[in-house]
Amino acid sequence: MMLQDLSAFEIGLEANAANFVPLSPVSFLTRAASAFPDKVAVIDGERRFTYTQLYDRCVRLASGLAALGVTRLDTVAIIASNIPELIEAFYGVPMLGAVLNPLNTRLDAANIAFSLNHGQAKVLIVDREYAALVTAALENVDHEMTVIDIEAPLGANAPAGALRYEDVLASADPEFEWPGIPDEWQSLCLLYTSGTTGDPKGVVYSHRGAYLSALGNGFSFGLTFDSVYLWTLPMFHCCGWSYPWAVVAAGGTQVCLRKVEPATIFRLIAEHKVTHLCGAPIVLNMLAHAPKEQRVAFDHKVTIATGGAAPPSSVFRSMEAIGFRVTHLYGATETYGPATSCVFQPEWNGLPAEERFARMARQGVAYPMVEAVMVADPETMQPVPRDGERVGEIMVRSNTVMKGYLKNEAATAKTLVEGWCLSGDLAVWHPDGAIEIKDRSKDIIISGGENISSLEVEEVLTQHPSIMMAAVVARPDPTWGETPCAFLELKPGVDAPQDAEMIAFCRARMARFKVPKTLIYGSLPKTSTGKIQKFVLRERAGAL
Amino acid sequence: MMLQDLSAFEIGLEANAANFVPLSPVSFLTRAASAFPDKVAVIDGERRFTYTQLYDRCVRLASGLAALGVTRLDTVAIIASNIPELIEAFYGVPMLGAVLNPLNTRLDAANIAFSLNHGQAKVLIVDREYAALVTAALENVDHEMTVIDIEAPLGANAPAGALRYEDVLASADPEFEWPGIPDEWQSLCLLYTSGTTGDPKGVVYSHRGAYLSALGNGFSFGLTFDSVYLWTLPMFHCCGWSYPWAVVAAGGTQVCLRKVEPATIFRLIAEHKVTHLCGAPIVLNMLAHAPKEQRVAFDHKVTIATGGAAPPSSVFRSMEAIGFRVTHLYGATETYGPATSCVFQPEWNGLPAEERFARMARQGVAYPMVEAVMVADPETMQPVPRDGERVGEIMVRSNTVMKGYLKNEAATAKTLVEGWCLSGDLAVWHPDGAIEIKDRSKDIIISGGENISSLEVEEVLTQHPSIMMAAVVARPDPTWGETPCAFLELKPGVDAPQDAEMIAFCRARMARFKVPKTLIYGSLPKTSTGKIQKFVLRERAGAL
Repeated sequence: MMLQDLSAFEIGLEANAANFVPLSPVSFLTRAASAFPDKVAVIDGERRFTYTQLYDRCVRLASGLAALGVTRLDTVAIIASNIPELIEAFYGVPMLGAVLNPLNTRLDAANIAFSLNHGQAKVLIVDREYAALVTAALENVDHEMTVIDIEAPLGANAPAGALRYEDVLASADPEFEWPGIPDEWQSLCLLYTSGTTGDPKGVVYSHRGAYLSALGNGFSFGLTFDSVYLWTLPMFHCCGWSYPWAVVAAGGTQVCLRKVEPATIFRLIAEHKVTHLCGAPIVLNMLAHAPKEQRVAFDHKVTIATGGAAPPSSVFRSMEAIGFRVTHLYGATETYGPATSCVFQPEWNGLPAEERFARMARQGVAYPMVEAVMVADPETMQPVPRDGERVGEIMVRSNTVMKGYLKNEAATAKTLVEGWCLSGDLAVWHPDGAIEIKDRSKDIIISGGENISSLEVEEVLTQHPSIMMAAVVARPDPTWGETPCAFLELKPGVDAPQDAEMIAFCRARMARFKVPKTLIYGSLPKTSTGKIQKFVLRERAGAL
Repeated sequence: MMLQDLSAFEIGLEANAANFVPLSPVSFLTRAASAFPDKVAVIDGERRFTYTQLYDRCVRLASGLAALGVTRLDTVAIIASNIPELIEAFYGVPMLGAVLNPLNTRLDAANIAFSLNHGQAKVLIVDREYAALVTAALENVDHEMTVIDIEAPLGANAPAGALRYEDVLASADPEFEWPGIPDEWQSLCLLYTSGTTGDPKGVVYSHRGAYLSALGNGFSFGLTFDSVYLWTLPMFHCCGWSYPWAVVAAGGTQVCLRKVEPATIFRLIAEHKVTHLCGAPIVLNMLAHAPKEQRVAFDHKVTIATGGAAPPSSVFRSMEAIGFRVTHLYGATETYGPATSCVFQPEWNGLPAEERFARMARQGVAYPMVEAVMVADPETMQPVPRDGERVGEIMVRSNTVMKGYLKNEAATAKTLVEGWCLSGDLAVWHPDGAIEIKDRSKDIIISGGENISSLEVEEVLTQHPSIMMAAVVARPDPTWGETPCAFLELKPGVDAPQDAEMIAFCRARMARFKVPKTLIYGSLPKTSTGKIQKFVLRERAGAL
């Protein structure tokens, strides 16, 4: 364009270092360390780190990694429980422009080796709790890698590597001028998802996306300077839904937690006046059903956000009764965690409890940083009508959609389609804008040509007083094509009801064709993040 | 770079329409209209607009303006009180990629004409309340311009233009496919500030900056879906600190207000359960000192943010007593309004009231979207020590720093220096990270929240035939914060004019709020090099 073709609004108004800064979540820490240096940033048992100390340790980590040869876009993997060192990695690694790869601690050695090889990790930081697992995985790692052990207080595992985390920090340069990033699109994190089939896929996040995800999550969740966030959600899971950054953006305090145990959680909530926590529905279940002697009373409201499967109304009820406010979110690793939420509408307070909980189980409100969400027909990419009936696939468009899958352009192209991220989740769209998830596309049961939402059947089953968790899958059937088959986990110390009683219970609450034809009692298989492994149940149902 | 030099993190992970959307505050409205279509977005007297209706009116405005020939980077000026149509302009104009130029309603006709000419406004939208003022200004506009009147219920002013706002909307296309923006750096707004010297400067904002400012303001101010925001801050002032967008990002409700009158404010707070408002310290003063019969009791906490001069402790005390929580902010038009705030620290609750109020009058915490704030020596650009004593200039680096001044590269270069936006405000830095403003930039007087350039007033005063030299400084005032106080040196052998004559002389040549409230005649104190010692005059004015 010739200069004379430019508008006055395009001349002399260029971006410069005063008015343009590449968006990066590391900024939240530099700001916090400058603005409230003495505020407690992290609590871990008896350990306390102020924002000054947290910043110092992150700079030292960056410096130490640089000394080990880590540079721009090198992968630094970490396997750790929710401990301060993991929070530090969320800053120290991006300070170098390197890529953080938090590993799922519940994976087996083969899966860990796969991730380390696929992501070509240059350094692996190991919480000593997982040293034996890592040592086994290292046998199958195909390249040179520096291994650093974090000296965990528990476990007498032999170290997995030659270096100690605190030694690396102690010998690092506290004045290290970390380079940061020149381009906010630069890759920040690598997260392997456990697909139900084939190899895990490596989801890649950008600095820009993580920055906006953190701001949007902090804003939506109501984090403030006074917030105390308890780490019941694994940080390796979608970067802990961006909370390692969001809590720092708010200037709040993070409370670490190694094991998700109700007794510890209740104690920490009371002791530190925890205001916010997140977790899979199974965490809510654990808290709601914790024995009385494990509970510690607290007199403040605690907000708990949960995602994954829609919690049954019984969970909302139990959690409210013991002082929690439940917020229900929907998202995926591909959307940096939460993309939509259920925003409680004051007029719901006037509804009967069942109806209120049903509204709370919907999640239609796009996060503020999400550009658009729609329920659409994946064939035509046209939105379904907002009639609460027509089922479509949830699709998201956002700066908080992943860059893509690492070294897997085919999978990326199947997921990011015509400007939308396809979730694979099926839902209906209500006239009020709410989205109600009906199922994963593969979890829908088609019986005699009728679609049956397994979630809907599970919701009814968990209303039965004996049932703690329910999972319904398709069982092949020569007559109907498929029939619903229910796997049921009982509450502790309760006997299984008679089949006839359970069937009658269902018939009173759902259309006849939706009533499970098969009922099986026992413990349900779960993934490392607490999701029920429906594919395992589907195999079992197929083999019946 | 050759392909083989690229990292795996740079291949197949490009930005696309699913994962990259140019940041624009218009997104907040499209999201709100989709997610909570029936929520009340705007209240104005008896009028209510849901998010569906607000979105519809904004699309119609965009369509109507497009039909008038408005296109990318054309300027659309608007002069209006805080009415719904002004909120609509904050969306309808950017939807076209055009530039919104909200005009200060308190300016005189000459200043308005200057803005319209300098910004080359293609369309001017006029709240009928200001039609006479605009009609006078139009006489000096140097180019063709379409003028649209908003039919205000009050005032019988003859319309300033040939078109009516509601007619434009009624004949517009509600299905108009507004183009949006391809580049988030694109100019969004133009705001004229009264600078210290010469003509007003046109501060230009970008879509990116406005988006981040809105998210950061909403996050910091604790806006939620349940928030009700009352418009006591002029929207023309730094785009209303981004709240026309921030409230929509939260999904809250905006309550319009034509006149800042305590009785109306109290009534609206009680009637609509207002949770948040903003205003200059004078607004707090008015509320704190409102006669009892104007007050309406409310039983909820109301958060009020104030900027400009630090409020005296008496204001904090009075406001707390009647149910307000005061948050103190610091910023400038050049930083999209608030850049830092005072974050109340729980341990201050234990301090004696005076000390607590002193802490509350500081403002050191950079907003979450602000990259960095420092107090530095403008000569060396090095930060001053954090000792609470050494005075330096406040400098800001942020994506929420203006793009620059329109058609004024010299002024831009003086303000955006070496990666920092120089505020011209002097402050000390405390060890806890708090910043305490010691002096406004010495030439600026802030009266009733409006900046008055002393040089501009001096220029007029010295045009009077009797005056040789003039120096105008701020005089503290319990109502206005500050008022202009003029020290005047007469020409030899000339008698001082009557005050009434001098005031009339000024009123004919400047906006009413800029006219000095105090006139003092005598010899002016000067340095050895002949510069007027304004600090001496400031002391004198303070002692009056």
